[in-house]
Amino acid sequence: MHPLERFFWPRGVAVIGASPDTHRIRGLLLAHLRNNGFAGRIVPVNPSYREIDGLACYPSLAAAGGEVDLAAIAVPAAAVPAALDDCAAAGVPFAVIITSGFAEQGGGTGADQAGLRRAGGPRLAGPNCEGFYNAPGNLAVTFSPTVEARATGTVLGGKRLGVIAQSGGIGFSLFQRARAAGLGISYAISTGNEADLTAADFLEYMIADPRTDAVLMFCEAIRDPDRFRAAAEAARAAGKPIIAIKVGTSEAGQRAAASHTAALSGAATAYHAVFAAHGVMEAADPAEAVALAGLALTAPIPRGRRVGVITVSGGGGAWMADTLTANGLDLPTLSPGLQDAIRAYTPSYAAPANPVDTTAQGSNTGPMMMRTVALLEASDELDSLVLVSSFASETRTTLDPAVLGPIVARGRMPVVVWSYTEPSGFGRAKAAECGVFLRTDLRALGAALGKYTAWAAARGHAPVPVAPLAPRPWPVGLPRVLTEHRVKALLAEYGLPAAADRLARTAEEAVAAATALGYKVALKIQSPDVPHKTEAGGVRLGLADAEAVRAAFAAISAAVAAHAPAAEIEGVLVSRMAPPGVELVIGCVNDATFGPILMLGLGGTGIELFGDVAHHPAPVSAETAEAMLRSLTGARLLRGFRGAPPVPTAGVAALASLISRIAVAHRDRIAEIEFNPVIVHPDGAVTIADALASLR
Amino acid sequence: MHPLERFFWPRGVAVIGASPDTHRIRGLLLAHLRNNGFAGRIVPVNPSYREIDGLACYPSLAAAGGEVDLAAIAVPAAAVPAALDDCAAAGVPFAVIITSGFAEQGGGTGADQAGLRRAGGPRLAGPNCEGFYNAPGNLAVTFSPTVEARATGTVLGGKRLGVIAQSGGIGFSLFQRARAAGLGISYAISTGNEADLTAADFLEYMIADPRTDAVLMFCEAIRDPDRFRAAAEAARAAGKPIIAIKVGTSEAGQRAAASHTAALSGAATAYHAVFAAHGVMEAADPAEAVALAGLALTAPIPRGRRVGVITVSGGGGAWMADTLTANGLDLPTLSPGLQDAIRAYTPSYAAPANPVDTTAQGSNTGPMMMRTVALLEASDELDSLVLVSSFASETRTTLDPAVLGPIVARGRMPVVVWSYTEPSGFGRAKAAECGVFLRTDLRALGAALGKYTAWAAARGHAPVPVAPLAPRPWPVGLPRVLTEHRVKALLAEYGLPAAADRLARTAEEAVAAATALGYKVALKIQSPDVPHKTEAGGVRLGLADAEAVRAAFAAISAAVAAHAPAAEIEGVLVSRMAPPGVELVIGCVNDATFGPILMLGLGGTGIELFGDVAHHPAPVSAETAEAMLRSLTGARLLRGFRGAPPVPTAGVAALASLISRIAVAHRDRIAEIEFNPVIVHPDGAVTIADALASLR
Repeated sequence: MHPLERFFWPRGVAVIGASPDTHRIRGLLLAHLRNNGFAGRIVPVNPSYREIDGLACYPSLAAAGGEVDLAAIAVPAAAVPAALDDCAAAGVPFAVIITSGFAEQGGGTGADQAGLRRAGGPRLAGPNCEGFYNAPGNLAVTFSPTVEARATGTVLGGKRLGVIAQSGGIGFSLFQRARAAGLGISYAISTGNEADLTAADFLEYMIADPRTDAVLMFCEAIRDPDRFRAAAEAARAAGKPIIAIKVGTSEAGQRAAASHTAALSGAATAYHAVFAAHGVMEAADPAEAVALAGLALTAPIPRGRRVGVITVSGGGGAWMADTLTANGLDLPTLSPGLQDAIRAYTPSYAAPANPVDTTAQGSNTGPMMMRTVALLEASDELDSLVLVSSFASETRTTLDPAVLGPIVARGRMPVVVWSYTEPSGFGRAKAAECGVFLRTDLRALGAALGKYTAWAAARGHAPVPVAPLAPRPWPVGLPRVLTEHRVKALLAEYGLPAAADRLARTAEEAVAAATALGYKVALKIQSPDVPHKTEAGGVRLGLADAEAVRAAFAAISAAVAAHAPAAEIEGVLVSRMAPPGVELVIGCVNDATFGPILMLGLGGTGIELFGDVAHHPAPVSAETAEAMLRSLTGARLLRGFRGAPPVPTAGVAALASLISRIAVAHRDRIAEIEFNPVIVHPDGAVTIADALASLR
Repeated sequence: MHPLERFFWPRGVAVIGASPDTHRIRGLLLAHLRNNGFAGRIVPVNPSYREIDGLACYPSLAAAGGEVDLAAIAVPAAAVPAALDDCAAAGVPFAVIITSGFAEQGGGTGADQAGLRRAGGPRLAGPNCEGFYNAPGNLAVTFSPTVEARATGTVLGGKRLGVIAQSGGIGFSLFQRARAAGLGISYAISTGNEADLTAADFLEYMIADPRTDAVLMFCEAIRDPDRFRAAAEAARAAGKPIIAIKVGTSEAGQRAAASHTAALSGAATAYHAVFAAHGVMEAADPAEAVALAGLALTAPIPRGRRVGVITVSGGGGAWMADTLTANGLDLPTLSPGLQDAIRAYTPSYAAPANPVDTTAQGSNTGPMMMRTVALLEASDELDSLVLVSSFASETRTTLDPAVLGPIVARGRMPVVVWSYTEPSGFGRAKAAECGVFLRTDLRALGAALGKYTAWAAARGHAPVPVAPLAPRPWPVGLPRVLTEHRVKALLAEYGLPAAADRLARTAEEAVAAATALGYKVALKIQSPDVPHKTEAGGVRLGLADAEAVRAAFAAISAAVAAHAPAAEIEGVLVSRMAPPGVELVIGCVNDATFGPILMLGLGGTGIELFGDVAHHPAPVSAETAEAMLRSLTGARLLRGFRGAPPVPTAGVAALASLISRIAVAHRDRIAEIEFNPVIVHPDGAVTIADALASLR
């Protein structure tokens, strides 16, 4: 039995602080628990009442006796420790603390949260949460109004979605929206401040749980990143899709999320990178989340990106075609044979190419759309089908359960429906009868099918293990900011490409260095206090002789002295000018949540103006680094741009992998390290033309 | 009276081809007309029936007599001309041809469409359309099932939306969705193949019509661009927002749209540019279209981009904050005074900064959200308010009509509601009672508020009139592709910047030219058959002396001969190398629909890899060209990038304006003209470093 089994499936549930007043959270908690049909024992605890609405109420858990596996605690913050003592004394293994006013209050003004979890006491969910709902168990341990209404209508496909959210409001809204879309639900849980059990704990449970087939997760912050990543890989192995939403990507959103769940989260880019690396689909809004959940629960794995659109509205078909194309899907023109077959039964003004427009006449004679579905599903020309129709009529529909039901049940390919009208009850019921997932949200459905198809293609590719580097000892007394020459010196023993450069402290040393290296050279100020060298006038390029070097040295010294008079100057780095090539950026930021994240991007204006960059959690294999390069918008520069031959990328990919392993080996010290630019020459050789690191 | 007044407000309506069979389009047409409460005369015409469902049916319009202003025609395509003759004979001024099988059939196989409009005959809507609905007139001239259900619930704000679409399916779905959102509707019309009356005609009517306050328009193609642009400017002057959707942006979507309405439309970029120039808001999907329509009908003009978010869910507030930020809106931190005022009545764990989180406790005690709305609306710190809450409960709500109703009615700022749950009937009714626009679509609502705010800021800025250039006569016998030297020679008299270059036909001519111009020079092949010179090996840059020029001439000749042996060679252009600067692209494409569209973008990889480009219909004033430059992602390169001084842009803006006027003056000849790169030097001087034009 999984350690959390009795949390979700308790034999008895106590409500500590139970109240008859259903205008208060503690009153709603008991009412929902009683109204949802939980078959186990329900134990109200409150010394103020002898009974509540006909149910015996106890002054303490100890007084109640019997098998209680879970206590829901809704007393004021100051009374929570005593309630937990009561749980411990009664041997209750789990508690959900609904009460707010702990760490989320900020500034140390809240009640003590760290002390809630103690030896011998229960494992905890919350505090500051909205509880959970176990749908197959009819167990509502929440004050969320979404459990007041019961599921209605057919559940599609027989599979179940688990929902996990730090935010109770959003978690239960996603549950409610998914249920309204006809999806089966296993659990919905809000995790609040996560003083003990975290979202990753519940994710791990649901991935192991046979009643859950896919998980939808709303994240403000992930507190135990390693457990989360392990659970995501377990989900990949089990074939259970995970859909995640990450909020706090804007400054105002971060402010809101931090004050809400008392957690500072890492950078949004790090979350995106971790999600992508571990096969977690990301949803941009609730409609997209529900659409992805619907595909995860009802659609077979698409074999490819070819989508057939069948429509009764030319305009609707065009809109869907645009939307699917924008989401990375293809709409191939159907073969002449298929088009002829369609022409045989559609009006002369129908369009058989794809989108297949069976016309408005077809909307009044359902068989045309149904015949087309059967024809396309049986062909080998498509990987998914999207049906576009109106479902507004209370009496007519383009769907025929006798035709579409068996096609959906056979599961050769995803078949989904976009209703461009708000469906009538009749229309919804017919779609449900066919077992087909119906959405009204055009953009959300198109984005979801695109993401699901991309996920399907990538789902077999777990991250390649990368051998760790043994960290070598570093000298003591390093400055917080490491300039280029220091970074190169420090990392030389790991095998960075050799640098044609020398540090100079005087103009004459610079001339000597340039003469030894060979002209032309560049001069760059080296100072931990001048990270933006160009803006400070600290860089001179393309110097062709000793005189130019002398003049550049003087100009740099003067400019930097004017720009940052108090800067500590280590010297001027004299570098032989590298031959031209494609400029890239390689960096690693040590994310507060996930540790080092490798960044690989197009240098120069590519990254500075256009943000053309890919991220992946470190360490990264050379193969993955090559895939990151291919994903860049600027990848064309490497593939043979404007008639140039392709640039070999094995060398720069190996360097990126090495840098990622160094960042992991020294994660205790390196806050951020960046090599910008890294020049990839036409023969694949690599020059590191600048470097900077900051330590912590 | 507007010429189309009797089209939308006929005294009597005939249905030609009327049928009692409501499984057929012609039967539905009559049934909907009768069931929707039209107060005028209804005249079924069909020689096969004496009466239909109790209503007298006539063999012809002439036989029916009486005042009929509109005939709906649903007979087979071959019988349509006779029906129109009947209309003409009876003096019926307008007809809606529902029948399909005309130009949309393609390949000339359809019935003759051009012959439908004849002298003395009625003005026509359609063919191949779904008719129209006049909501205040209770007039349904359509077979769309969306008119089977009547409007229910409150209409917000008392204003009305008109809907225009070539696609009947989508037009009526937008009508239906807007109505379901509580919005008032004036008309919904589908225009079909537009053999006579076009979407722009109906737009013109609705802008002039006092019963219509905003228009939602779904475009596959605009057939009379000048009338459309004039109507859009009339809408700007009348303060009536227009929301447009353009489909056919993908290849498959274009295919679908073209086969559907028998119209080839111009490029999507041209549509986007025309919409933006004329103050037309664009919607990406139906949810966004309805959200924009709701703002247009119910929200006052926001004074700025500052949004206050008030939420009962921390997670919901964070999600909304991210979404609004992503849509160009600001969420300023509230002043200490406001935050203190909020702290006085919210729980200790509430968040007062913005988003203001009144907490889940606040969701059970509505006054907290309502007090906050009143407080923020009365402050001068915000320009719009977004309320975030659950509306799932059948008994409780955070909204109080007594507080919110007067605030919405006062109209100081937009106030909208995002329900993160699917609302209950009770929740919807409460929002309607407050007069507040409620949406469940997070992304659509955020995008709509962002677009509405941007539209509000720009709505006073009609395009600046630009003086036309008189086209000067061109020599006869020009090739279809004009190379750089030809473009410059042809346009020199309009005042393009003088070029430091000369055409050379031999290596020695090239050396002489280089010597005369001064080194360094570039050599570029000039051939109408080699538009991609670099890829063909036809360009050599930075040549420093005669020897280099000679070698380059030979290399170019050899490379081009190998690459395109049959190419006609005009010579090699010798240009003095321009000093460095910011590289831009200026071009004009003569769009099939809208004529010349000016393109201004960042040169080099900026446009080739990242598509960093702005478009505007030509002619363009220098002021507008400067605004286009400022809108580029790469605008930072001109504003003083990495410590460099800002680059004056008056010169390049004037050049862009001039090029746009040349493109208009010669729109009969120039299919496309491009100057790439145009180098803007640090002092603002401009060098045209390459040019190419294609004629038609």
